[in-house]
Amino acid sequence: MKNKKEIIASIIIIGNEILSGRTQDTNTSTISIWLNSLGIRVKEVRIIPDHEKTIIETVNKLRKKYNYIFTTGGIGPTHDDITAESISKAFNLNYGPNAEAMSILEKYYKPGDFTDGRKKMACMPDSANLILNPTSGAPGFNVENVFCLPGVPSILKSMLRGIDHMLIGGDPIISHTINLRTVESEIANSLTKVQNSNEEVDIGSYPFFRAGKLGVALVIRSSEQNKIDKCVVEILKFVKQKNIKVIENN
Amino acid sequence: MKNKKEIIASIIIIGNEILSGRTQDTNTSTISIWLNSLGIRVKEVRIIPDHEKTIIETVNKLRKKYNYIFTTGGIGPTHDDITAESISKAFNLNYGPNAEAMSILEKYYKPGDFTDGRKKMACMPDSANLILNPTSGAPGFNVENVFCLPGVPSILKSMLRGIDHMLIGGDPIISHTINLRTVESEIANSLTKVQNSNEEVDIGSYPFFRAGKLGVALVIRSSEQNKIDKCVVEILKFVKQKNIKVIENN
Repeated sequence: MKNKKEIIASIIIIGNEILSGRTQDTNTSTISIWLNSLGIRVKEVRIIPDHEKTIIETVNKLRKKYNYIFTTGGIGPTHDDITAESISKAFNLNYGPNAEAMSILEKYYKPGDFTDGRKKMACMPDSANLILNPTSGAPGFNVENVFCLPGVPSILKSMLRGIDHMLIGGDPIISHTINLRTVESEIANSLTKVQNSNEEVDIGSYPFFRAGKLGVALVIRSSEQNKIDKCVVEILKFVKQKNIKVIENN
Repeated sequence: MKNKKEIIASIIIIGNEILSGRTQDTNTSTISIWLNSLGIRVKEVRIIPDHEKTIIETVNKLRKKYNYIFTTGGIGPTHDDITAESISKAFNLNYGPNAEAMSILEKYYKPGDFTDGRKKMACMPDSANLILNPTSGAPGFNVENVFCLPGVPSILKSMLRGIDHMLIGGDPIISHTINLRTVESEIANSLTKVQNSNEEVDIGSYPFFRAGKLGVALVIRSSEQNKIDKCVVEILKFVKQKNIKVIENN
């Protein structure tokens, strides 16, 4: 499955509210889909608490293992927002106000409203690059291969396209889905044969239950269209032999 | 924040479909809320691919670090369902058909429908305990402190209460929420003071945007009600001084 041009990433979701179950993480899916479009595969996600030592250790471990690291959460103004200071410590950089971020926030708030609490949002590691925030002013930041984003999903979403030019992707990952009216155990053996004869393609099998009916989604992923096409032909062959209905194929 | 009676857990979400962004994980939140009710805190979540070596290494690392490990995904009948075999290898146990699981599945399927593909769902590590599945027959399993559950959220949900008696929890974690009509930076300094004078309580601050209005949810978590009550009094005091509207307090 390993590709020579494979560019790989990891996401670190920082926040007690995700671990307690209070908040449902949706940023993983948003970031993964966006990275796929740039030819970058997410290989691991960690959800960790707002705890300095854990953040430092996790970032320092993963940034050596993956081409890119994306963190979400913990860059707001309150006491539990400790990501920027933790990242500074992970890189042994000073933590303090960033002049450009200060100037952005000064313009964003009314005179007199740029309080000390808000100034914290301009503090980050020395020499960090800003990630602009078109929604609510306060920027994210980037140090080497680590990109720090906010936890609020709508704000995070609005910032991603501004990072595109900072990343070098690989071959875009193409995916093809075949939805079948069947159950997994009906096709398991035939599907195993197709996977075994197409090792460089990633075939996933996902049962679903929609409108009162069972089905299976087969998702074929690769950076090479012709390899996907070969798999699709082989799958449709056994599907026809077994007289299984194809609900969707695209 | 560390409590003498703290029982801690980690969740390992296994599945390429989560890492690709195709499927939104919801099992983390389901499992965390259920564990909270038993007095068990989730301290870390990892989302990893359907890759044997990664599963083995992750399970072997985390099972020594936490009281309990919960895995989701990869226990179905298809080629990409490799969790049961990987867990067997992690524990150096033989992998093969479990007599009780075979008997459950034989009864679940019509005669003749219990195919080889389906028999795979009865295969697991030697000496594993079954986790019963009231929804779709195929059981999960438990080895030592590791509990393996399916990835389909509705099926997973239906299996959790059947595990309660297999776990020893700590003091249940109580949480209290105060929703305020304000923005985080207005209260950041005051809130920091409350957190600093109540170190054993976990105070989270989460901005929200609902019905066109901004607000902040303060979530106070502890296993001791009186410690939460003390925090609530201190928070409501500065909230009143600042003339901030309390939207919810419970």
